[in-house]
This record gives sequence, C-alpha cells and structure tokens, in this order.
Amino acid sequence: MTMKLYFAPGACSFVPHALLETAGAAYEPVLVKLHKGEQNEPAYRAINPRGQVPVLVDGGETITQIVAIVTYLDAKFPEQQFLPKDPLARTRVLETLAWMNNTVHPTFTHVFMPFKFAGTPETQAELKAFNAKVYAGLLGELEAMAQKAAGQGQAFLGGERFGPLDAYALTLLRWGGFAQIDPAGFPALWAHVQKVAQLPGVAKAIERERLQLNLYKAA
Amino acid sequence: MTMKLYFAPGACSFVPHALLETAGAAYEPVLVKLHKGEQNEPAYRAINPRGQVPVLVDGGETITQIVAIVTYLDAKFPEQQFLPKDPLARTRVLETLAWMNNTVHPTFTHVFMPFKFAGTPETQAELKAFNAKVYAGLLGELEAMAQKAAGQGQAFLGGERFGPLDAYALTLLRWGGFAQIDPAGFPALWAHVQKVAQLPGVAKAIERERLQLNLYKAA
Repeated sequence: MTMKLYFAPGACSFVPHALLETAGAAYEPVLVKLHKGEQNEPAYRAINPRGQVPVLVDGGETITQIVAIVTYLDAKFPEQQFLPKDPLARTRVLETLAWMNNTVHPTFTHVFMPFKFAGTPETQAELKAFNAKVYAGLLGELEAMAQKAAGQGQAFLGGERFGPLDAYALTLLRWGGFAQIDPAGFPALWAHVQKVAQLPGVAKAIERERLQLNLYKAA
Repeated sequence: MTMKLYFAPGACSFVPHALLETAGAAYEPVLVKLHKGEQNEPAYRAINPRGQVPVLVDGGETITQIVAIVTYLDAKFPEQQFLPKDPLARTRVLETLAWMNNTVHPTFTHVFMPFKFAGTPETQAELKAFNAKVYAGLLGELEAMAQKAAGQGQAFLGGERFGPLDAYALTLLRWGGFAQIDPAGFPALWAHVQKVAQLPGVAKAIERERLQLNLYKAA
C-alpha cells in the first residue's frame, strides 16, 4: 500500500512533503484545499478529526503532528538521517523543532487565523497586529541560528544533513511575507532558505505546491 | 556532575519532574519563582534566554522544551520506557505529546497569560473567556483518550507504562481549575489523574511542588 501525504500548499505540511521528496519515497501527495474548506468536510474529518494538515497515511496507520511524522519518517528512511543519530545532537534538533512547532508556528496562526483565538473583529485585528511583531522577533531568533550555523561552517540548521528544521525555517520565513515582514531583514536565514530551496527534493515540493518563496510586498 | 531540573510549581515542568522522580534519578530540583519574576532575571536568562521552565542541565548541556527533555530522559533511563520501544506506539505517544504541547498548553496560556498575545485589557479579557471555552473542548478530547484507554484495559495513556502523557494530562486538567473548569466533568480523565497522582514518583513531585490536584471552585 502506497503512503499518502495530505498537504496544503504553503502550509506546515511542506515539512514532511520536502522530506518525502528528498527520500525519493513512493507516496501519493493529496492536495487539501483549505481555502475551499475541504478540511472541514466529513470526508477529511474522517481522516483527521482535527481538520488539519499534514496527515501521513502508511500501511493503514494515520499519523498527524509534524513532530510525530518527522520522527516516523526518520525511522522509515534511516539513510537520510533526517534527525541526527547522536543522542545529544538529536535532542538539539527536537528542541528547536518543538519550539518552531509550539511557539513560532502558533504565533503566526494569530496573524493568519485570528478567529481561532477570539470572536470579535476588533480583537482579531489587535491579535494580528500584536503577533506580527512577536513573529518578527521569533524570526530574529531563527536568524541568529542561521548565523551561528553559517559561522561554524555547518551546512544545515540541524547539522550536516538537510532535515526538518530547514524545511520548517523555509516555511516560517515565507509566512512572514503575509505579515508584511521582509525576508531581506534576516539575511543569514534568507540566504539559507534560498539555498535549501535549490535542493532537488525541496525544489520538487516547492514546484508541486507552486510556492513563491518571497511573498513580501512593500507597503 | 549532578543533573539539575529548573521547575516552577504546577507549571509544565511537572512533566520532567515526575519522570525524574519515577526514575529515581540523582538530580537537584531548582525552584524558579515565576510569581516573583525570577525567570526574567539575568541569572536565569543566562540559563534559558527564553525565560521558561523546564530546563534540564546534564553534564554541562542545557536542554529546554518538554518534547526534547522527554526524549532525552527516555534515552537516559531506558529501563523506564517513558516512550514505547515499538516505533508505531512511540509515534502515537509523540503525536499526542506534540498536540498537548502545541495546542492544549498554548490554549491555556491565553487564559493564564493573555498579555503574551495582546496589549489592551479588553482584548486580554476576551482572550481569556474565548480560550477557556476552547480549553474545555480540548480537555474533552483528553477525556475521550482516557475513556478509550480505560475501555481497552490499558493502564496509562501511552500504553502499559507511566509516561509523559500521564504527567502532562495531570497538569492540563489541574490547570482547568484556573479556568473555572470542574475536573468532575471529565470523569475518566479525572479518575486517571487521581490514580496517576498516587504513583510514588508522581506523588513525590506533587509533594515537592505542594500541588493541590483540584483547583476548581464553584462560582
């Protein structure tokens, strides 16, 4: 039975999408049209009751959550070393992955989908504005990580191999454009993301999702 | 060099605290007084620039983030099997752990620390009220998990061994009291949490943190 990845263009499902393409995995990419609300339809809720992407289906098992999917793909494609083998290096990658997933990502959700956190338009507007500023600060933390990696001559954010941190960083910096944040303000991160986007597997995922890397438009 | 755990009473640092006590680990618990703002003082920021608990220090390494600390402790104390060895069962636990950490926990942060997401008092008040309702719904999902485990005769949320999901569930249900949510409304979860609280390692962490399990007060 072929694996399936349920993804939405530009969403955080880009992370497993890029990993699967990098591994040359046999799988079926299934597009979920979030803007048409397909994630709320009964057919999709039967797959993921929480109505989110990504979902990985493998051998009858349905797996959600980036952290779990990444760990699963790391075990399934050990030759890719998506997560470092060394326990401490692995812990460091999981630490940053968890932070991206529980802090940076949800901060952007306040900008992009403020209705998840508040009901009135006034409050939603304040959430957008307040959290766009917080988000810029968090991208600053990612910039420092990219600078540190570059300064150490380390090719990727997690070590010497492409992995989930690089794919997530690309996604998060790209989202910044929706919050009127110019990627050029984060030069090491932006250089890293542009380099990562050239990797064959990443490029293939970008092409399928038809992503434009730089969404920033000067006001 | 002895391990150190920086914790705050009742915070999510309870998860590694309970695991360390369960393992009978040699470590020094270090209390961080959040209500006195110790997490913002230079001494603590030097340990964790993000000013959060938990922080685990081991052999000169400083590790943050629940997901990373749990994975690290699982590798350090393999006999405890804090995470299942079976890859699929392990993926399932990480899936729920990630969800607790990126969804349930941040939802509560909106109730407890709304100033993290918005500046004006009106907006903060709306965030508190809106997200207290969302939080009750998420505790409902945890209740369904506890019911399912009980129905299958499974002793703990992640399998047959006590692990991070049980300690986090205790923490999250306890927090509900701060949002005027009665744990009795989640009978399977509440029964599970009360059972878990009796385990020697968990009981020791509860005693050190001086936690009252049920914080709910009828209005």
